[in-house]
Amino acid sequence: MPVRAEPSPPFPTLGIGMDSCVIPLRHGGLSLVQTTDFFYPLVEDPYMMGRIACANVLSDLYAMGITECDNMLMLLSVSQSMPEEEREKITPLMIKGFRDAAEEGGTAVTGGQTVVNPWIIIGGVATVVCQPNEFILPDSAVVGDVLVLTKPLGTQVAVNAHQWLDNPERWNKIKMVVSREEVELGYQEAMFNMATLNRIAAGLMHTFNAHAATDITGFGILGHSQNLARQQRNEVSFVIHNLPIIAKMAAISKASGRFGLLQGTSAETSGGLLICLPREQAARFCSEIKSSKYGEGHQAWIVGIVEKGNRTARIIDKPRVIEVLPRGATVTPLAPENSSAASESSL
Amino acid sequence: MPVRAEPSPPFPTLGIGMDSCVIPLRHGGLSLVQTTDFFYPLVEDPYMMGRIACANVLSDLYAMGITECDNMLMLLSVSQSMPEEEREKITPLMIKGFRDAAEEGGTAVTGGQTVVNPWIIIGGVATVVCQPNEFILPDSAVVGDVLVLTKPLGTQVAVNAHQWLDNPERWNKIKMVVSREEVELGYQEAMFNMATLNRIAAGLMHTFNAHAATDITGFGILGHSQNLARQQRNEVSFVIHNLPIIAKMAAISKASGRFGLLQGTSAETSGGLLICLPREQAARFCSEIKSSKYGEGHQAWIVGIVEKGNRTARIIDKPRVIEVLPRGATVTPLAPENSSAASESSL
Repeated sequence: MPVRAEPSPPFPTLGIGMDSCVIPLRHGGLSLVQTTDFFYPLVEDPYMMGRIACANVLSDLYAMGITECDNMLMLLSVSQSMPEEEREKITPLMIKGFRDAAEEGGTAVTGGQTVVNPWIIIGGVATVVCQPNEFILPDSAVVGDVLVLTKPLGTQVAVNAHQWLDNPERWNKIKMVVSREEVELGYQEAMFNMATLNRIAAGLMHTFNAHAATDITGFGILGHSQNLARQQRNEVSFVIHNLPIIAKMAAISKASGRFGLLQGTSAETSGGLLICLPREQAARFCSEIKSSKYGEGHQAWIVGIVEKGNRTARIIDKPRVIEVLPRGATVTPLAPENSSAASESSL
Repeated sequence: MPVRAEPSPPFPTLGIGMDSCVIPLRHGGLSLVQTTDFFYPLVEDPYMMGRIACANVLSDLYAMGITECDNMLMLLSVSQSMPEEEREKITPLMIKGFRDAAEEGGTAVTGGQTVVNPWIIIGGVATVVCQPNEFILPDSAVVGDVLVLTKPLGTQVAVNAHQWLDNPERWNKIKMVVSREEVELGYQEAMFNMATLNRIAAGLMHTFNAHAATDITGFGILGHSQNLARQQRNEVSFVIHNLPIIAKMAAISKASGRFGLLQGTSAETSGGLLICLPREQAARFCSEIKSSKYGEGHQAWIVGIVEKGNRTARIIDKPRVIEVLPRGATVTPLAPENSSAASESSL
């Protein structure tokens, strides 16, 4: 399976909203909300790749606090450069992963398009018809709000470091800061996180009165924070103090000199929601999302605050790195300089 | 601009409907209808390519008699193998063509996704929320109905023959039956037809009580007729007697031995609607669509009948070829064997 991830320059969106377009309909106050995304495989497991692609598409709806999706279309290309036998094994697995994730999101895939292309492509379209109370426009942050992030950062670093296990030149640059096992664990953790739906978080946005949100993908946490800040109606700006990062990925990013993970510019795939919440609600949000009633693996961190400002976003000079331990980890890694082994933090 | 067209095996559609999926909504009897298509450039003019891609996406809605579209998303890849200068000239033209055609269809493009890929990709998603009377399910053909086709066949032959002007080996096979000028005219005519919206035809489906319809694309007229026949509630079958074909394309198809145009298996891009109409309405449909109130270039032909049968479709042994003259043609081409120079026909 070719492993290739390109950052996707997002197409200009003219509708209301940032992550999805919102179109007022001719029928009784309803709005059409939809979004599309497609990209290239970045993990080796085709089933997980299907799940990730679906989670990534739905994430744009979830970023608006939408928890239902009326329909999904799948966009797929099978690779002409892949032997037919391999293609016939891999394609159904990708499709199954996509469909399973859609089902987990309470929706179904009822159409799409498949073509032949040099690279494998997987993606989709998510569409819902909403009443006004079903979505939260991402424009109402106020001074004093707190920023919460619902997945750890570092997915691109994890995916690349995993590829470098087979590339001695690249591996030599990072082997002083990380073991092969830690790379493997980080990769598994990244894959698991990318395949996790942001649906629980979307539902809790309503419970805890979120004022705005976006999801973290190709522009990294800083880029998406800046985009979100620009949308605000009030004169606010976002300041990020804490970076929850999959364990060891900050060290790899520094040693390789490639990603800018600590600067917030490392791309993420199917990342978490960044949510502006009233200060008193933020800790309750973080505690609620971990509750066992929502199943395993949901977590959230307070990462910053909303100040008065001119609709920009920044990361402080020496942000606190919160090393998020992979689920599979049995040994606590040595805490690297400038980080903390805590898995949660508050300001 | 790389010229490449692959037939796109359609993804299994689980919703009601054939060309679009139809999803009942939670809100007051409304349905969500949507469709997606993407492919690779097949004409050299990027602006026209954008128009064709948009017309092709919308065609799946039009095939259900839907004339409105609430929203379009654009799917695009820019080619990594193209020099940046060329890319920056071509991409905005494709986007403009797509947007202009959307506007002509009374809708707008409000989102999408752009990626980098070895090949250029262009396509989109069309979505509408409908009341039940806005669409016509393609399942109610009755014995005695007549089949009407709203664009001439032969687009793939025209596109390929045009490429062969620069390929001596291929050109030698067809130069006995066609002149360079005729190939040029046929290509222009094909491009014009592919870029024409089926919207007028979709509106007239309601006026003249259409019983079923589909649009002709990758499977050729025979393949799509068979698909449509399979959907019917009554025990009917479709028999095609006439093939309206862009002038000279039948001769090229025969001489090259490649397309199966006369067998109905030559792929079309953004082809016409094939509509089952009550016999007494069919001629009126064909006459109305040519009316000057709908602008230039709309035409339709009666191509077959609906008989009692087991939900199959076939083309008769020696179908009548209706040579459709390109708009730019000034001289009547010699009528080839087994064809007629008439531009319209009835049974």
